[in-house]
Amino acid sequence: MTTPDPADTLTHFDASGQAHMVDVGAKTPTERLARARGRILMQAATLERVREGSSAKGDVLGVARLAGIMAAKKCGDLIPLCHPLPLTHVRVGFTLQDDPPAVLCEAVAQTEGKTGVEMEALTAVSVALLTVYDMCKAVDKGMVMDGIALLEKRGGKSGHWLREGEVPL
Amino acid sequence: MTTPDPADTLTHFDASGQAHMVDVGAKTPTERLARARGRILMQAATLERVREGSSAKGDVLGVARLAGIMAAKKCGDLIPLCHPLPLTHVRVGFTLQDDPPAVLCEAVAQTEGKTGVEMEALTAVSVALLTVYDMCKAVDKGMVMDGIALLEKRGGKSGHWLREGEVPL
Amino acid sequence: MTTPDPADTLTHFDASGQAHMVDVGAKTPTERLARARGRILMQAATLERVREGSSAKGDVLGVARLAGIMAAKKCGDLIPLCHPLPLTHVRVGFTLQDDPPAVLCEAVAQTEGKTGVEMEALTAVSVALLTVYDMCKAVDKGMVMDGIALLEKRGGKSGHWLREGEVPL
Amino acid sequence: MTTPDPADTLTHFDASGQAHMVDVGAKTPTERLARARGRILMQAATLERVREGSSAKGDVLGVARLAGIMAAKKCGDLIPLCHPLPLTHVRVGFTLQDDPPAVLCEAVAQTEGKTGVEMEALTAVSVALLTVYDMCKAVDKGMVMDGIALLEKRGGKSGHWLREGEVPL
Amino acid sequence: MTTPDPADTLTHFDASGQAHMVDVGAKTPTERLARARGRILMQAATLERVREGSSAKGDVLGVARLAGIMAAKKCGDLIPLCHPLPLTHVRVGFTLQDDPPAVLCEAVAQTEGKTGVEMEALTAVSVALLTVYDMCKAVDKGMVMDGIALLEKRGGKSGHWLREGEVPL
Amino acid sequence: MTTPDPADTLTHFDASGQAHMVDVGAKTPTERLARARGRILMQAATLERVREGSSAKGDVLGVARLAGIMAAKKCGDLIPLCHPLPLTHVRVGFTLQDDPPAVLCEAVAQTEGKTGVEMEALTAVSVALLTVYDMCKAVDKGMVMDGIALLEKRGGKSGHWLREGEVPL
Repeated sequence: MTTPDPADTLTHFDASGQAHMVDVGAKTPTERLARARGRILMQAATLERVREGSSAKGDVLGVARLAGIMAAKKCGDLIPLCHPLPLTHVRVGFTLQDDPPAVLCEAVAQTEGKTGVEMEALTAVSVALLTVYDMCKAVDKGMVMDGIALLEKRGGKSGHWLREGEVPL
Repeated sequence: MTTPDPADTLTHFDASGQAHMVDVGAKTPTERLARARGRILMQAATLERVREGSSAKGDVLGVARLAGIMAAKKCGDLIPLCHPLPLTHVRVGFTLQDDPPAVLCEAVAQTEGKTGVEMEALTAVSVALLTVYDMCKAVDKGMVMDGIALLEKRGGKSGHWLREGEVPL
Repeated sequence: MTTPDPADTLTHFDASGQAHMVDVGAKTPTERLARARGRILMQAATLERVREGSSAKGDVLGVARLAGIMAAKKCGDLIPLCHPLPLTHVRVGFTLQDDPPAVLCEAVAQTEGKTGVEMEALTAVSVALLTVYDMCKAVDKGMVMDGIALLEKRGGKSGHWLREGEVPL
Repeated sequence: MTTPDPADTLTHFDASGQAHMVDVGAKTPTERLARARGRILMQAATLERVREGSSAKGDVLGVARLAGIMAAKKCGDLIPLCHPLPLTHVRVGFTLQDDPPAVLCEAVAQTEGKTGVEMEALTAVSVALLTVYDMCKAVDKGMVMDGIALLEKRGGKSGHWLREGEVPL
Repeated sequence: MTTPDPADTLTHFDASGQAHMVDVGAKTPTERLARARGRILMQAATLERVREGSSAKGDVLGVARLAGIMAAKKCGDLIPLCHPLPLTHVRVGFTLQDDPPAVLCEAVAQTEGKTGVEMEALTAVSVALLTVYDMCKAVDKGMVMDGIALLEKRGGKSGHWLREGEVPL
Repeated sequence: MTTPDPADTLTHFDASGQAHMVDVGAKTPTERLARARGRILMQAATLERVREGSSAKGDVLGVARLAGIMAAKKCGDLIPLCHPLPLTHVRVGFTLQDDPPAVLCEAVAQTEGKTGVEMEALTAVSVALLTVYDMCKAVDKGMVMDGIALLEKRGGKSGHWLREGEVPL
């Protein structure tokens, strides 16, 4: 790796290695989309509670959905070098999985801007899962969050990125 | 499950299933500690960048550590039904793992109060890992966060809880 | 009113009329409770949507409830001279009223502290009603919020206060 | 109402009834204006204090004005499904009314964007009135906020909306 | 300096040099007070505007006072390793100085807690001065803030600290 | 001064002297840049600690840099009448000065918008210096912040402004 090319650079640091908020002034605003996913593994009995809650009483997923959407709006405040940007769309959805028992979460964030919205989508997933944890921890402290990852990204100079094996939105 | 006992209840909902911020007024303040862990899997070359950064230039982990600590302080703002509480201590540490290549993160949160600090420790880990993602995503979009879980919890009526196989702090 | 007594004072200003955050250092922490109410008047058809939403799809009140609870936690950030305080309990409930068509909202806030929680309860009601407006405004821009008032207050030196005609909690 | 038309939809929910932040990516940015009003009813003696305060000492309305302006900027953080947007103008004004004794508040918010600013104007009014309550509650706990409503709205696809009986700005 | 004693330590770093939020769990809560000062130098004509504003119209100092008080409440959010704490009192005052022309600002913050409130008082002064700058910058871009310093500190293990030449509060 | 010209106006007040957030709707978005500077004077021994910290352990300046960058993003929340705006670039740098011993801080903020970014650059400097104070106060309470000033401003109708004696960026 004798000649470093731009793709090799951790862009959040300048030439002397100091952290900065990258200059995106010269970038062209484009439509941006990012989609992320994650899940929280839990005991079968806990999943049953979540499932009941969605229909009858104690809507765990309704609360977690809102938490995820609101967290996407706070992303620039949470991630130190992230650019603040006005989101045009955020969507957070859940799927219940029986084996192993888990709640799956998928989030989509969109904007028209100079920087991508990967962090907004990933933050929405993370905070939605943390909220599921918070609401179920009285009955199941051992829950584990995993598989939190970017699935797809559109817009910007780098164009379309799709995780291997995923179907584009 | 004919006679539900308290441990079966999702306490963030009242008897009619409406979300609320649980009344902890009658609880006794005690010393509270929570410890959580998680990791972000990445390409070996990305890990190498992080390792270099920690010594010479581009301190990824220094930025992620601060992000985690600051996020713990925002937990009551992020998690809808979480009680706000004044933390007395937050610590976020990292370990680099070669196989598979990953950054491991462990956080400890402490307070003297009426509610536990599990959410603060888990939020610190999640946001620290998200920040590593943010700072390395220019070279590695495929990173995956996993194993985000509570390891240990002290204080409160339920006493000491330790994840199976873990060594207490 | 020749001799002003303490009760006549707008305590948020000092002797020279300058705004300040009142010194409550010498006050004794006591259990505090405040209960507030308000409503949003709407067209009968809009109320019908809200009613359907609560059972089947589009849970307006579930979203508004969370917004109210989270706003109570932000009260010290919104009201300039309000003391920040760690709430021990927040509850937001709704009743649907047919004539005139309206959503009624009632909130209870509690803490153990040196200042009252009236502002937290009133802020919860106001933001919950604003959220109902936000979610229904696409079909009914003319909705009106009214009757936002404190119903009851417990704790502190001034003791129990109950709005005339109200039943204590 | 057999064939629902778009105007019948609570747009903050998707087809399956899940809350989301509506996709406004395809909307054209236009100049947006919203004007809202509300009042807080109080005892005549309290109004007298507010009136004195505005001239000599204890500027209740000056504090409430700032609180309203700053709250407009926090609207996207308070109202769960509200789009964050960069305001270009916020103005909050007050009128004192003697019979019945009350402080009237009117707010104007403007932006150039893809979504309206009704919530920003209504939030400014609500928080300004809450601040008046906070500053006068030591002498008058019974104050009531009412008549909080949108007066006028300009911009966007739906064009000009004016509350019946109001004079356009 | 061969044998480092505790007073030599930058306590915001642990033994391995990693930033953390210091553990104050074992500290005894005491009454804490901090007082800070600073000034903003400006053209004589600008100072004249500020002076007029305070009496007749355009209350620069009223706005700056509120900004300072509200910033003190946000201190734990602004200063990365600062403990969040519930303030019991904040006061911000101004003096106009003619030669050289300047606005002087002094702030007092108080709490009953385990950590000091120096940062709250200094943050109040800094943000109040920044607000004066913001409100006068249309007529005077060259204003300079200086002399921002702690004057006095009470409470905690270290007891009373007074800047040389200052009179205790 | 019989005929006031626009440059004489404190624009944050309207014709009747009421504070408002200035209407910038009619302004043309342009590239905006602001550069600010400040320093914190300290004992020589404290400076030595900061210097060591930057290389070996206890990275005071790394923490302060992040605090400054994050504060620039919160400027619209801190300064009451400041317009919120999406920054495209923020950079915070430090220089160590031996005589008198001090840490110098310089910040650059950029955006493409309708209002300038002076406040963002000045806020970044102020909060970065406050953070240095926080991290070193255990060993040196007497540190003083001074010389906080705008150095340069580009963009907008008023064009390029450069503090006398400064070299343009």
